[in-house]
Amino acid sequence: MFQHPSLLFTHSRHFLRRRRRCHRRRLLSTLSHTLSHPIYTVWAANTGLGKTLVSAGIAASSILSSPPHSKLVYIKPLQTGFPEDSDSDFIYRKIPQILHRRSPQSTLIASNQTLNVSIPAARVKIGNNFSEVSGSCKNGFGDFGFYEEMKVGDGVGVGSELICKTIFAWKEAISPHLATEREYAFVGDDDVLALLQKCLETGVESDGGVLSLVETSGGVASPGSSGSLQCDLYRPFRLPSILVGDGRLGGISGTISAYESLTIRGYDVVAVVLEDHGLENEVPLLSYLRNRVPVLVLPSIPKDPLDDLMEWFDESQSVFHLLKGIMLSSYKKQLDRLHEMPRKAQEIFWWPFTQHKLVPQEKVTVIDSRCGENFAVHKMKDHGYISQMFDACASWWTQGPNAALQIKLAREMGYTAARFGHVMFPENVYEPALECAELLLEGVGKGWASRVYFSDNGSTAIEIALKMAFRKFLADNKLLLDLSQHNTDESSIELKVVALTGSYHGDTLGAMDAQAPSPYTGFLQQPWYTGRGFFLDPPFVSMCNGAWKIVVPKKMNYVDVKEDTSFNSRDQVFNKSRDDSNLSSAYSTYISQELLPSSGSRKFSHAGALIIEPVIQGAGGMLMVDPLFQRILVKECKNRKIPVIFDEVFTGYWRLGVESAAQLIFCQPDIACFAKLMTGGMIPLAATLATNDVFESFVGDSKLNALLHGHSYSAHAVGCAAACNSVKWFKDSQTNPNIIPGQNLLTELWDAELVRKISFHPAVQRVVSLGTLFALELKVEDHDAGYASLCGTSLLLKLREDGIYMRPLGNVIYMMCGPCTSPQVCLQMLETLNNRLDGFRQEKIQKTHEV
Amino acid sequence: MFQHPSLLFTHSRHFLRRRRRCHRRRLLSTLSHTLSHPIYTVWAANTGLGKTLVSAGIAASSILSSPPHSKLVYIKPLQTGFPEDSDSDFIYRKIPQILHRRSPQSTLIASNQTLNVSIPAARVKIGNNFSEVSGSCKNGFGDFGFYEEMKVGDGVGVGSELICKTIFAWKEAISPHLATEREYAFVGDDDVLALLQKCLETGVESDGGVLSLVETSGGVASPGSSGSLQCDLYRPFRLPSILVGDGRLGGISGTISAYESLTIRGYDVVAVVLEDHGLENEVPLLSYLRNRVPVLVLPSIPKDPLDDLMEWFDESQSVFHLLKGIMLSSYKKQLDRLHEMPRKAQEIFWWPFTQHKLVPQEKVTVIDSRCGENFAVHKMKDHGYISQMFDACASWWTQGPNAALQIKLAREMGYTAARFGHVMFPENVYEPALECAELLLEGVGKGWASRVYFSDNGSTAIEIALKMAFRKFLADNKLLLDLSQHNTDESSIELKVVALTGSYHGDTLGAMDAQAPSPYTGFLQQPWYTGRGFFLDPPFVSMCNGAWKIVVPKKMNYVDVKEDTSFNSRDQVFNKSRDDSNLSSAYSTYISQELLPSSGSRKFSHAGALIIEPVIQGAGGMLMVDPLFQRILVKECKNRKIPVIFDEVFTGYWRLGVESAAQLIFCQPDIACFAKLMTGGMIPLAATLATNDVFESFVGDSKLNALLHGHSYSAHAVGCAAACNSVKWFKDSQTNPNIIPGQNLLTELWDAELVRKISFHPAVQRVVSLGTLFALELKVEDHDAGYASLCGTSLLLKLREDGIYMRPLGNVIYMMCGPCTSPQVCLQMLETLNNRLDGFRQEKIQKTHEV
Repeated sequence: MFQHPSLLFTHSRHFLRRRRRCHRRRLLSTLSHTLSHPIYTVWAANTGLGKTLVSAGIAASSILSSPPHSKLVYIKPLQTGFPEDSDSDFIYRKIPQILHRRSPQSTLIASNQTLNVSIPAARVKIGNNFSEVSGSCKNGFGDFGFYEEMKVGDGVGVGSELICKTIFAWKEAISPHLATEREYAFVGDDDVLALLQKCLETGVESDGGVLSLVETSGGVASPGSSGSLQCDLYRPFRLPSILVGDGRLGGISGTISAYESLTIRGYDVVAVVLEDHGLENEVPLLSYLRNRVPVLVLPSIPKDPLDDLMEWFDESQSVFHLLKGIMLSSYKKQLDRLHEMPRKAQEIFWWPFTQHKLVPQEKVTVIDSRCGENFAVHKMKDHGYISQMFDACASWWTQGPNAALQIKLAREMGYTAARFGHVMFPENVYEPALECAELLLEGVGKGWASRVYFSDNGSTAIEIALKMAFRKFLADNKLLLDLSQHNTDESSIELKVVALTGSYHGDTLGAMDAQAPSPYTGFLQQPWYTGRGFFLDPPFVSMCNGAWKIVVPKKMNYVDVKEDTSFNSRDQVFNKSRDDSNLSSAYSTYISQELLPSSGSRKFSHAGALIIEPVIQGAGGMLMVDPLFQRILVKECKNRKIPVIFDEVFTGYWRLGVESAAQLIFCQPDIACFAKLMTGGMIPLAATLATNDVFESFVGDSKLNALLHGHSYSAHAVGCAAACNSVKWFKDSQTNPNIIPGQNLLTELWDAELVRKISFHPAVQRVVSLGTLFALELKVEDHDAGYASLCGTSLLLKLREDGIYMRPLGNVIYMMCGPCTSPQVCLQMLETLNNRLDGFRQEKIQKTHEV
Repeated sequence: MFQHPSLLFTHSRHFLRRRRRCHRRRLLSTLSHTLSHPIYTVWAANTGLGKTLVSAGIAASSILSSPPHSKLVYIKPLQTGFPEDSDSDFIYRKIPQILHRRSPQSTLIASNQTLNVSIPAARVKIGNNFSEVSGSCKNGFGDFGFYEEMKVGDGVGVGSELICKTIFAWKEAISPHLATEREYAFVGDDDVLALLQKCLETGVESDGGVLSLVETSGGVASPGSSGSLQCDLYRPFRLPSILVGDGRLGGISGTISAYESLTIRGYDVVAVVLEDHGLENEVPLLSYLRNRVPVLVLPSIPKDPLDDLMEWFDESQSVFHLLKGIMLSSYKKQLDRLHEMPRKAQEIFWWPFTQHKLVPQEKVTVIDSRCGENFAVHKMKDHGYISQMFDACASWWTQGPNAALQIKLAREMGYTAARFGHVMFPENVYEPALECAELLLEGVGKGWASRVYFSDNGSTAIEIALKMAFRKFLADNKLLLDLSQHNTDESSIELKVVALTGSYHGDTLGAMDAQAPSPYTGFLQQPWYTGRGFFLDPPFVSMCNGAWKIVVPKKMNYVDVKEDTSFNSRDQVFNKSRDDSNLSSAYSTYISQELLPSSGSRKFSHAGALIIEPVIQGAGGMLMVDPLFQRILVKECKNRKIPVIFDEVFTGYWRLGVESAAQLIFCQPDIACFAKLMTGGMIPLAATLATNDVFESFVGDSKLNALLHGHSYSAHAVGCAAACNSVKWFKDSQTNPNIIPGQNLLTELWDAELVRKISFHPAVQRVVSLGTLFALELKVEDHDAGYASLCGTSLLLKLREDGIYMRPLGNVIYMMCGPCTSPQVCLQMLETLNNRLDGFRQEKIQKTHEV
């Protein structure tokens, strides 16, 4: 049966590698757990600290408390040393004993079940009668029907219930990841979570008091079967936690460290409980926890293995009673808070971009946490539960991390906050800022940029870019010299931008003035908006009825370019060979006409900067601009010494499938702005990159020549550290499975066939899919189009029921994933959307008929 | 000798409390450590994992390596179980043994010294001859001259050197904090650090290869003598670290958790080393560490206490050789990086507010880390060292944390990043955002604000405030109705702000347009600046020659208010009784004249908002505006239905000694902006608070009526969590010793007498001290005044030598501390400044003579 040890070693290593790669099936998460009763995870600072005794104590206290018909669900997801060391077996036998001792007249129905047992473990349990039922075994586990139950007490009246479950069991009393290897019985994280979810449902429909306990194995960061640390494995549920601490010499340190490992993964520890070893470890622990988390001390545990522990449980009774009380009140507090949150939010928040009158209390989403791409959302129905939901608005276009990156970033941000906090940037240097600048210049700035200017968000990065561009323009066009020699009067010069209709560059006034009039720029919104630009109508591209089509601006309608405006594939749209088309020269002509200096104005207006969002105009409605047009526009501006700014705040960092969207239009700017995804979607940080020529136009003898713009948290260390780690993570095929090695490209995330199919849908006007973005415009009457449209609301509410959280841009809706999101998840989302579109269409038809 | 146990217990608890309170002497930190040779801290995941064996292994490897005349410094700061368990004694005896075995011809001079020994421990060591020398004992410790040395080898040629030092020793083999209590021998953290610093200097002047090891006690988070966790205690040095892991069952978890406790405190772990227990714990550890940190495995340690371990050391030789190599190369890498950082920074950074031409490479400050209010800065001279420096620019006015708050915030930010990352804010609610909004409204918004609008920095918060104010103004003055009914044309309305000369409200265009022309707003800086305001010259207050004096604006010169413009104390300036003065009515008249509607313009200009920085105009040059004037200005504007904005970005959150500077002028705004110190000085987050009336002017049926402004990371969870924790920490007298309980006030931080003295200094024009701010204006010729002035440069460079990092605002220089900084530290800084001012004055006189 067993192979030669060294062979086994090789084998198991290979096994381990394979498992690592596939331990997440990467499906759209449907995990949820009830809030109908308290559920706690019991963790320990180390192995052998009496975790199961604590579980037993809580269980006994819970069952003995009134009402007497209470229910206790004990779950051991991963058990090694089975069957001898089975913790659920211990609970199953010990609770009736305690009950009988303390309340002999009580009735209890107890059961104990082990669901999946490795063959070696089953062989031990069954003994001589074991016959391998390999047919029913999967991945080395079988369900051998290990179930037992007993009834204690006189049987009169409804009694209490104790349900014990072991989900996966191995024979050897070692860490599950080792037992997995040695017994060839492997289980992936998703399967553990799915089965755990099922077990957590036990007890939902009960009338009495229910308490569920999930007991982990070993220490908080001990590996599970797949090798994932348990604190990572169970993170999607983020159950409230009890930490069993260490009362021995050295135990203060171990307990604090274990607490920190849980905390740095977003868990809430409700209480610490530890065995007394006469060292008063609770004193420094309480001091460390600043009395926010109670620390309970259990009497010393008898060392004699023959001791039935009944006396110990008696002595511990008051401690467990207290602990159970803490657990219940903490649960109640959590529920109360979840329930009041929507009302409170409505009362005191002022949400951006939100008409509060249109958001009734029941529409407010309570987000309990996020794990990778998924929100954990509180839902009120069915006693209330916490449910996973895909964050398809990418929390407003910022999100990138999967679960592993999120935890990594949390740790790195914590490290950086502890190492640096925030330190002064000007004239100084510190590691995260330097490494971040290096990574930006080696990455998105490669081949053109030589300086990095940090600020806080896209909007500030744009204002900085405009200041840079204008100075460069003045320098290049000798205006700077004229000004310094007083040959020219400042007031005679009006600097404008060249920008595209439908663009959006941020919310601060300077960034707004660089965009064409829009719903965001009206007098009511921004009385100071003036629109300081030459605004060109660009040609747009999208997929309609299966084909990619270009719609040229009205002013170009006289040109006959029909043959150049329809494509079978997106690749054709981006193909550089289009430079030779008739459309290409038509674009040149159009642009030249638009850039003719305007006359009649009081001042002489200069086009002092070109600013564009490469390829996709985000806030404008996910509009795809013909890349050929942008390439020619850049060329024409460079010919006229107009500095070129790329606003990559939305498009940068893999949003469009490449690190910098400049790659898609095959040209380089003088200045480019990055933000949003740059930190992986954790905290605000922005960067404006510039060429050395741009930088040089600010160098001089006086401080007044320098660029006098800077925010207090300029290049803040925590943001830079988040950026460093995200930038590296996204582009490395070792960490991002979507990177096509050697190509610096993301794999296609949205299923091409299904995208094509959706583009034919009668409810759909147009479709765009590129990189992490899939967007569609709903077909509506003209009066219902635009940013203020509410036409997609019912569709999006349906999709939220399906576990996809989206937000509309008027009648444009979009789904956005992270650079690491699996294409399978994207496929599932597209399928869900496609299904809902059918219903939406029918609903619309019905409405029309009703009218 | 020993008291009754229960009495001892009471005694020691009392003892503990007293110690806690005083365990930092809170002096201006002068800590530094050399970089002339590698210094490592040896930590362990738990007690009893062989930390000292690892130290011995590294020591042996180091001494045995070429050059043979190498030096090894071994330091044990805290030793319990002395003398039996003395680790430095073990090293002192074992290394010669190993050396003799492996290289019998080598020469070694070894010494072992124990500096401070508790009386019970000394009694054991000295035995019967012990006579208590209480005269030389301090805090229960004495230096009993425990020193021994030996020479090994033939004595020919210069040999190697082994220096072993124990700094503090207790008798009982328990945690130092317990031994401290039981043996009445206490040492504060500052004394540990000061003595450790001294020991670290051993070996600086050596020629050969030197390596220093600092071995901690117990686990990473085991308490030291004062009760501080060792990982917190040693944090100011932030020495690179070796972690001794746990190879036993459960050891993966303990090792990972210990690693995380070090990481979350900003330590760099260079290698993990652990004893083999046959469980291959290194495999999951390597996987967790993603191969960035090497994990080394030591052979199993003989359990027999009689084993002399020589064979084990032989077997381990190659591992320790490898480990030593890792330590040396990591040290070299660190040095190389520190050396190249200034050059790289100069090449690729574009610092804000910085004329790069004026910053030569040697002026670039390399910041290795920060701990509370102090930077750790790299200095090149004397082989290079890392030195502490007080961050008196408060890293540009943002800083608040002391060392304890910094570590707490790091953990809370890590927790929040892991729990939430960033999640969508509009229409949603999540705990950190809700709690933060609640705290803001209960704190700085108390009594007037009812809504919180989040954004990223002060500048964006101001732009949002302006939008709010203008809408409110339009609504209050029926213009909104007129506009909606088309009775009025938008283009006929010009909205302006009322603002003060010298004010500064941020760097984005909208915020800039709300300020009067200044060096920051010139055409070269911001070609789009127009200055949309009625800009009033305010009266300024400052201390000159010992008295607080008001200088009224020129336009008021005709009024005779002399008797109302000079005060003996700052309190008089803020006294509300001044409302009845003649000056008060003169202010009213002046303001009314200035607010008369302007005529002659094409448009009809409205004063649509008042915006002021309460009390202190920061960027304008730390100008203190007469609080009486601001109070009257607010009143006059409210009378005219002009919404009032307080820009508290700089002044808020204890900067001026109160949570909101509005408290100082006894009036409330309609809108107020907060940022900077709100997150404690960690990461950017801003909030615009508003009254319900302001909010209501945006409520309507259409989304287009809503406030369409919002940044991607609106209300980002990590920032909100940092804010929640800082806001609570600063105002709680339990955590902030500067809070005067019950008064919601900071204690006076700057010594009044010394401030007065400085105001008489001939080099000083004026002085302002308030809350955490002390500022002075240097007396200069007119042509050298203002933002571009470089006159303070030499003075500030001297102060940097003294360990105070300051930045000038032209000829205004300032020192800023945190809300928790001890007044003693402030006093030391003032004294230092005062001393340097004398030198500065002399230097100036000399220069004048030379001319």
